[in-house]
Amino acid sequence: VELVPLVLAGDRRALARLISYVEDDGPPARAALAALFPHTGSAHIVGVTGAPGTGKSTLVNVLARSMRAQGQTVGIVAVDPTSPFTGGALLGDRVRMRDLAGDPGIFIRSMATRGSLGGLAQATGDAVKVLDAAGFDVILVETVGVGQAEVDIARTAHTTVVVEAPGLGDEVQALKAGLMEIADVLVVNKADRPGAAQTARALEVTLDLGRSTKGQAGWRPPVLKAIALDGTGVDELLETIGAHRAYLRESGLLVRQERERARADLMSLLERELVGRLVERVGVDVLERWVDRIADREVDAYSAVEMIVEGERDPRGV
Amino acid sequence: VELVPLVLAGDRRALARLISYVEDDGPPARAALAALFPHTGSAHIVGVTGAPGTGKSTLVNVLARSMRAQGQTVGIVAVDPTSPFTGGALLGDRVRMRDLAGDPGIFIRSMATRGSLGGLAQATGDAVKVLDAAGFDVILVETVGVGQAEVDIARTAHTTVVVEAPGLGDEVQALKAGLMEIADVLVVNKADRPGAAQTARALEVTLDLGRSTKGQAGWRPPVLKAIALDGTGVDELLETIGAHRAYLRESGLLVRQERERARADLMSLLERELVGRLVERVGVDVLERWVDRIADREVDAYSAVEMIVEGERDPRGV
Repeated sequence: VELVPLVLAGDRRALARLISYVEDDGPPARAALAALFPHTGSAHIVGVTGAPGTGKSTLVNVLARSMRAQGQTVGIVAVDPTSPFTGGALLGDRVRMRDLAGDPGIFIRSMATRGSLGGLAQATGDAVKVLDAAGFDVILVETVGVGQAEVDIARTAHTTVVVEAPGLGDEVQALKAGLMEIADVLVVNKADRPGAAQTARALEVTLDLGRSTKGQAGWRPPVLKAIALDGTGVDELLETIGAHRAYLRESGLLVRQERERARADLMSLLERELVGRLVERVGVDVLERWVDRIADREVDAYSAVEMIVEGERDPRGV
Repeated sequence: VELVPLVLAGDRRALARLISYVEDDGPPARAALAALFPHTGSAHIVGVTGAPGTGKSTLVNVLARSMRAQGQTVGIVAVDPTSPFTGGALLGDRVRMRDLAGDPGIFIRSMATRGSLGGLAQATGDAVKVLDAAGFDVILVETVGVGQAEVDIARTAHTTVVVEAPGLGDEVQALKAGLMEIADVLVVNKADRPGAAQTARALEVTLDLGRSTKGQAGWRPPVLKAIALDGTGVDELLETIGAHRAYLRESGLLVRQERERARADLMSLLERELVGRLVERVGVDVLERWVDRIADREVDAYSAVEMIVEGERDPRGV
């Protein structure tokens, strides 16, 4: 908690340490988050997501550099869904990010799964809150667009940029489809490669077919082209992100997003807290005996839950 | 609940109706599941998962036919993660499945998301339990290998078959990697296509690199080749599935799997029940006011949860 004033004053080492605490999720992290929370709400949170190979890390780098050139400070949270198989590739991305690291107006942090994916989404959300409170104007959250946790993370952004590239086969269509539902802006990166125009057209067609699940009646996700490696199209992308922010503000959606985020936070923390308290009260041993009884088909899980929760109430005479 | 004896007696219409109740998840479904639960535990549950375009539906069909030829009865649960974008492709799969529909030893059911993905995993697990109680020898659970919910569903199977096909680009590597972690058996389908041997080799290499997260020290997932369209390799796949079942039994892993499944069931139902009861007691209006206060930055979600849960205890004088 003594880190809080340092973080609010912009101390980078305090910031890094506090995010580590947040990743470990103990009582000190919660106290610090509570103290920082009133200072959040000013940053524009931009999710950048896409399948591996689309060049989204490079795009994040050039975006960050252009935002800096406009005088904005930028926090970057890169989410690594660490797998024994993919670890290597993502490490490469981190190395590429180092060319931003000298700039005091940029703060880069990568988050890795340790244990549950649900925990990762929570920790990422909290890290974004810390950067928000620390005063960064924009927070870029980079995720690989695979898996439910990734989608959940992307959903916490105000503006979600989905990166595609030409020549990804039809096989990843379903993957793309899942991502398109959360896209506010679509970017066909590597637009100098053959098939870029075709990919852009296919995205437009898919947009025509699908209904947006985000309920943004007044916003049709634009399909942009870019070449992150030489910066082509990045200015237009920046403008579009700005236009989406303006749209969110003027339509009142920004306020609605905040409420939805608040509700999701509240419900997932309530779940964790209630189960945690019950486990503590009932005792792990007792719960393990219930697990045995279910595994032995003596009782089904629905009835077991009923009995555990009701049995708890009885002793108190309620 | 009056459907239960009919389901146990093998009445197909009762079975179909009960699974519909299970999808809707009301009190009657829970009562029926409780009554059926002691009759579960005999079926071998086989998950078949893979990216779109790998031909996994066709493979499920020929597997089911071969199992029937060996005298086993087969339940098939096909999971549709319905998206406005992918609906069409999966519909095609369902049509293909119709050629099995005349056989009374086969029961086919597809499950679609209505609302939450978590709900789908729950409903699929319950549908599998119903088919298990109804006496089917094998239950094939077919899922598209995209997303966390899919992985959760695949995880409930005793044996998970991951289907690949030659020529899926490197771009889907991460997708594949996520699936490989849950694979007990790998199948390179469409093995007559160019690149099949290369795909199989790549899978072997990946297996060498990665540690299995399933903790099966005595089982290295075999990489098989198959051509589902003409039945090539299907006998070997059947044998391998049988060998994996024998391995699970002899190693004691089957018992451990049952316990883990029981624990996961218990914990996820406890979560739902505890939150549901709290919402009822505290009232939706009061919770919505907490959401407002969080959205307005008056209080953070951690502190709100603390106050809601503690505040509840006070009035009772605890």
